[in-house]
Amino acid sequence: MSGPGPLEPVEAQQARVLAAVRVLGSESLPLGAAAGRTTAAEVRAAVPIPVFDNSAMDGYAVHAADLTAASAERPSLLPVVADLAAGTDLTPELPQGAAARIMTGAPLPPGADAIVPVEDTDGGVDRVSIRRAPVRGAHIRRAAEDLAVGDSVLAAGVRLTPARLAAAAAAGHGSLEVRRRPRVAVVATGSELVAPGAPLRPGSIHDSNSTLLAGLVVGADAELVLAERVPDDDAALIAALARARAVGVDAIVLSGGASVGAYDVARSVLEPRGIAFRRIAMQPGKPQGFGVLEGVPVFALPGNPVSVAVSFEVFVRPALRTMQGRAPFPPPVHALAAVGWRTPPERRQYAPVALEYDGPTLLARPASAGGSGSHLAGSLALADGFAVVPAERSEVRPGDELAVMLVG
Amino acid sequence: MSGPGPLEPVEAQQARVLAAVRVLGSESLPLGAAAGRTTAAEVRAAVPIPVFDNSAMDGYAVHAADLTAASAERPSLLPVVADLAAGTDLTPELPQGAAARIMTGAPLPPGADAIVPVEDTDGGVDRVSIRRAPVRGAHIRRAAEDLAVGDSVLAAGVRLTPARLAAAAAAGHGSLEVRRRPRVAVVATGSELVAPGAPLRPGSIHDSNSTLLAGLVVGADAELVLAERVPDDDAALIAALARARAVGVDAIVLSGGASVGAYDVARSVLEPRGIAFRRIAMQPGKPQGFGVLEGVPVFALPGNPVSVAVSFEVFVRPALRTMQGRAPFPPPVHALAAVGWRTPPERRQYAPVALEYDGPTLLARPASAGGSGSHLAGSLALADGFAVVPAERSEVRPGDELAVMLVG
Repeated sequence: MSGPGPLEPVEAQQARVLAAVRVLGSESLPLGAAAGRTTAAEVRAAVPIPVFDNSAMDGYAVHAADLTAASAERPSLLPVVADLAAGTDLTPELPQGAAARIMTGAPLPPGADAIVPVEDTDGGVDRVSIRRAPVRGAHIRRAAEDLAVGDSVLAAGVRLTPARLAAAAAAGHGSLEVRRRPRVAVVATGSELVAPGAPLRPGSIHDSNSTLLAGLVVGADAELVLAERVPDDDAALIAALARARAVGVDAIVLSGGASVGAYDVARSVLEPRGIAFRRIAMQPGKPQGFGVLEGVPVFALPGNPVSVAVSFEVFVRPALRTMQGRAPFPPPVHALAAVGWRTPPERRQYAPVALEYDGPTLLARPASAGGSGSHLAGSLALADGFAVVPAERSEVRPGDELAVMLVG
Repeated sequence: MSGPGPLEPVEAQQARVLAAVRVLGSESLPLGAAAGRTTAAEVRAAVPIPVFDNSAMDGYAVHAADLTAASAERPSLLPVVADLAAGTDLTPELPQGAAARIMTGAPLPPGADAIVPVEDTDGGVDRVSIRRAPVRGAHIRRAAEDLAVGDSVLAAGVRLTPARLAAAAAAGHGSLEVRRRPRVAVVATGSELVAPGAPLRPGSIHDSNSTLLAGLVVGADAELVLAERVPDDDAALIAALARARAVGVDAIVLSGGASVGAYDVARSVLEPRGIAFRRIAMQPGKPQGFGVLEGVPVFALPGNPVSVAVSFEVFVRPALRTMQGRAPFPPPVHALAAVGWRTPPERRQYAPVALEYDGPTLLARPASAGGSGSHLAGSLALADGFAVVPAERSEVRPGDELAVMLVG
């Protein structure tokens, strides 16, 4: 980053990042501990679904042939020879000319070939009066009709949501092989920074980047193992990096000190250690440091909080997703610009936008009422996402289609 | 729910639920512990943003009037009288005819009225050669230009995302007043249920509802305090309810045993205790129990996992959001039906759908390839949301607009 020179495309930097990170190892976890983890392998059904032929209704299991003449005017009467609850392990053969009371989910007795819903009967206990002739197979769920043993339930590389964990449970799994969570250290640099809520000294401001990065890391299903704030002092940063490596990390994310200033501690410490600092054709987030330090990917992001948030989405989140075995880029949403705005030439803009429906049309408008858009409390806190405006464009016009990265 | 009778509208049941729940109390939490909580009050800036006049660039603080003649051909030369890093607490008056080296974020020295970016200079340390005349005010961020003390930063009732927590930090807060998390017990009923991964007995199936409900509760930012599985036995359910009340809960969510069957333990135990069981005009999820038991809202959901997932989104999540002081209903997304399907008459359908963009158009298609859609592993695990089809409609046609509730 010595001198201006041409800006590098965002994709080139993303490619460098993705080439430097690898998928982490896996471990087996019980379902209750696997929420937010990523499947390390395809999950296949260990049991059929349904497990056995069963009733889809509360009613009576019957031989359909016994009831061809049943009608509301002339109900058929059958003896009730069994009472089958869900969970019963008694499945006696159903004799011809008889009915078995049966609950939803209870195993179908052998011989029965239809269920008469309780609504079509008098609900009898010893004998039942049936007012409608059932179709053969009615209201029976057949074993394996939804899923046979070995059928795919979940693909590899998917995030385990409540529904997916429940699907794995239904398919016979009590635990799953999942990717390890990336262990991440975040380090906010800047002598001007004091802890949130602490009294301000002259010239100091409150550190918001530690809070932002810690939250984004956890929201990306990674594990935050260290969060530090260090002054613009080489020795202090070197010590923080040593602490991060000592606890064991898969990535280190720094904010601040990545640009050309004399006191840019991140560049001062990291550039001699092989971390490359480049000017990327994006706004915000132009100065970016990235490299591998003793085997650990290190991201040196700019210091402005909006730049930090954008840089995280563009470079850090894809890396953390890749480490977890997921596709690197979550799909964007599409919206129409509600208003126009000017964009910087030759840099891809990531504009904080608020999203709102106008009928079925999703509209995006700048999250800050005006100004640079780089102001944290006035734009980032109100933003639902970042609208991606290509570098070739110099303005967004009302009605333009926009891809929007949702914020984490 | 004695006999068929008319179905009740979804909105009527939602209104009963929302009338029975109240906003929980609040507590003060440090920012690092407040992720996913909800603001209990509007958050206003405790400090101005920026805190003080400061430089937006690395460069030199100057008096603009000294440099009106500066140009690339005839640079102006100024003595450098100070070196101002970010975080410095020394802000000497800048004499006329002098420059101060200044880093991004460092306080502007009194008297200075413009910043010359380092790119427009020779980067001198003792004396600096300036190649461009600055405009007064250039690259200066003025104190409070983004936010004055007392300005609103976050509304009450918003979920604390990483960006919102960072905005609170930047605005001077180290802790926030947030709503208490709802304490929730989940109870899956059914004698057929065995634990995920356990060996199956004849007639038994694996319990997936405990896993599903536990995950949905946690995903709704509530606290799971108890998760139980009980057989279809009144005494067992009564004991489980007593345990829930003993640990202290704000809501109890049951699955299974809510319909008309003889072994419907939830109804058998809860109806005499004042929980009303109704048939709601929705599919899935028709049989619903809801009421308040000794001050605690109790939801008795059907037993089918897809019904559980839908019922949670339609009734339980709005209650948990209300308890946290949020708007009860998260906004749906809008999509177009990619294919058509038939829907049940006189019941609002919540159809599990997968969402995918076709260019800028969001398309919804049934998540299961066919069949009833009530099969967990084949539809719920693949669903991005539930398409809401009004009760008046008997079919969805390709291209129809659909509101889609995203799954939790």
